[in-house]
Amino acid sequence: MKKIPWQDQILMIPGPTPVSSQALLAAAQPMMNHRSSDFKKMMEEIESGLKQVFQTQSSVMVLTTSGTGAMEACIVNLLSPGDKILACPNGVFGERFIKIAKAYQANVEILESPLGQGVDPEKLKNRLKEDSKQEFKAILITHNETSTGVENNLKLLSSARGNHPALMVVDSVSALGASELKMDEWKLDAVASASQKALMAPPGLAFVAFSERAWEAAKSSKMPKFYFDLPMAREFQSKGETPFTPALPVLYALQVSLRSLMDEGLDSSFSRHKRMAELIQTSLGKMGLKLFAHPEYRSKTLTTIEIPAGVDVKKLREMMRNQYGIVIAGGQGSLTDKIFRIGHMGCVGEKELLYTISSLGKTLQELGFNANTQEALKPFEASSLASIHH
Amino acid sequence: MKKIPWQDQILMIPGPTPVSSQALLAAAQPMMNHRSSDFKKMMEEIESGLKQVFQTQSSVMVLTTSGTGAMEACIVNLLSPGDKILACPNGVFGERFIKIAKAYQANVEILESPLGQGVDPEKLKNRLKEDSKQEFKAILITHNETSTGVENNLKLLSSARGNHPALMVVDSVSALGASELKMDEWKLDAVASASQKALMAPPGLAFVAFSERAWEAAKSSKMPKFYFDLPMAREFQSKGETPFTPALPVLYALQVSLRSLMDEGLDSSFSRHKRMAELIQTSLGKMGLKLFAHPEYRSKTLTTIEIPAGVDVKKLREMMRNQYGIVIAGGQGSLTDKIFRIGHMGCVGEKELLYTISSLGKTLQELGFNANTQEALKPFEASSLASIHH
Repeated sequence: MKKIPWQDQILMIPGPTPVSSQALLAAAQPMMNHRSSDFKKMMEEIESGLKQVFQTQSSVMVLTTSGTGAMEACIVNLLSPGDKILACPNGVFGERFIKIAKAYQANVEILESPLGQGVDPEKLKNRLKEDSKQEFKAILITHNETSTGVENNLKLLSSARGNHPALMVVDSVSALGASELKMDEWKLDAVASASQKALMAPPGLAFVAFSERAWEAAKSSKMPKFYFDLPMAREFQSKGETPFTPALPVLYALQVSLRSLMDEGLDSSFSRHKRMAELIQTSLGKMGLKLFAHPEYRSKTLTTIEIPAGVDVKKLREMMRNQYGIVIAGGQGSLTDKIFRIGHMGCVGEKELLYTISSLGKTLQELGFNANTQEALKPFEASSLASIHH
Repeated sequence: MKKIPWQDQILMIPGPTPVSSQALLAAAQPMMNHRSSDFKKMMEEIESGLKQVFQTQSSVMVLTTSGTGAMEACIVNLLSPGDKILACPNGVFGERFIKIAKAYQANVEILESPLGQGVDPEKLKNRLKEDSKQEFKAILITHNETSTGVENNLKLLSSARGNHPALMVVDSVSALGASELKMDEWKLDAVASASQKALMAPPGLAFVAFSERAWEAAKSSKMPKFYFDLPMAREFQSKGETPFTPALPVLYALQVSLRSLMDEGLDSSFSRHKRMAELIQTSLGKMGLKLFAHPEYRSKTLTTIEIPAGVDVKKLREMMRNQYGIVIAGGQGSLTDKIFRIGHMGCVGEKELLYTISSLGKTLQELGFNANTQEALKPFEASSLASIHH
């Protein structure tokens, strides 16, 4: 069978996610002088859109880097070597946050959660209460953990701090724009995100916003940095510039995708993502598959599914890609042989979900698993979940 | 007068430089899975092209960052806090290299050169001879300094080391692809560059190659890093991947622009850039302007010009932009009120040079400087310097 060209494949992975043709065409615009009033105008529009998405009055720094770079920017600007911090990992990306902090000599304590579950706010509250000297300088939280398909309850976790002064540092790379995050109201101190997930732009840019407390903490940070120096970035951005030449094609596309998101409205985007997640998760259950993440913590942007006994997941992914042009993801780390993952964020809509379910059912049948595709398709009968662009 | 839209302006600045329409359209391609055989194929082609441009057998790491990030990657992977290094700055970008090294606690000694001149190989040789304990771990060199319009003689500087074991660490952000750099033959240990200069792609990607000696030094480096961890990047790239989600639109465009460069041939590109520089520099002299950089060290990718007495350079740049759509650059740092700068690299060709000279002559006349435009246009009569794409 002829392979479906990558340009025609549908990315049902946790990122990069599909980008609208309007945003793609914007990426093809000519280069511009990044020290000009035209650039300033674009940056101001983009930062204003990002502030709305972050739900903050603070500046949102735009960095040319991946989401990981934004996480690193949080660590190196807020902390000093030896600082005690409390990390609350739920999987691979939570572990990555820890690796970054340790690379810069932070003193990391880990609050464990069972895989597939979120961080328990009570457990966090109790651990912070025990910290009677209030030694923890920061708490690291992954808003949405794509390796396990888990979304944490940020609001509850942040309020679990009570009077503890630790900074709440959040990786919201795979949730921002799809799931509510009220940075100011929830008193989050640092939020990192990236362009290629629910913000519907290509990869290449990442974002960081700091609360006033975080900017204050940044003043005494002694971790080394230059490219990720956020006070320098803020100074440039206050003049509508970036310290270094930015990834212009991604900025151009982001300007367009943020306009789409603003046109749709944040609340509509949140409810659309919620309904997409419910639709595919209900459907997968009816197909006879077992979801990995605990129901209380299931992500709105991707779904993790246990590999049915006897099914070769590598084969499953290959067949889905070659026969139907659907790209799904395997498991990561310790979950490599246990789960597979389907992303559904940004520009993804009912059309893509339906086609994925239909193709998954047929492929699983071919691989010997008795998928109940007919039942799995029923939830779509009652649904009318257009994507943002269709 | 109606302002010329930024999309129609001609970027005669040291970067970002104009990008061909073929490469721009490539940037508009859909997203792809960065963990796929299609991605691997693209990465392998890109790395193979970069190896030819770097003239090295070593791996060339592709990072989603600006050129500054690539410079930082050199520092943090090769050195440890307290290491003694010898920096040889020629202007703002040489100073930036020093700032990065100091941010990570390197012990930096500075070998000064007069502004507008290159680093004197004899001076470097003598300083290294005095270092009888061979304490310098590295030498920092800016191949082409865009703030002063100076190109260093890398080959001579590298051989000036003699038997001194210091690593030769080179920022070739604004020269690579336009001016010869034989990484292996000249025994350069680390070379950093970026996508948006003579490589004719949009900004967003930067590159680093290490010699075997440099990879060896990297093993004992104790400066902290995560996003810029090059051994990790090398491990991923050996499998045709990047550790983190890369700036796909820039990779797509780079694939196309590298093909152009390979089609033209490196030697043709070098001689084209040399002829472009000679043409515009001769022409500017005939116009009655004084070039800033010493003739021995004049850059092939941009020209620095002393501001004629009485001319308001801000006004000059504004008129050039608004009346003719030509974007030229002002001076940086201590040269802000002394020089202006014209970039001529990558896709720029005779058409753009001619129009720039003609427009500059007319604008200077308007501003009261008696520019001899007629003389300045003469060198173009004998020339036939097509750009790479026209």
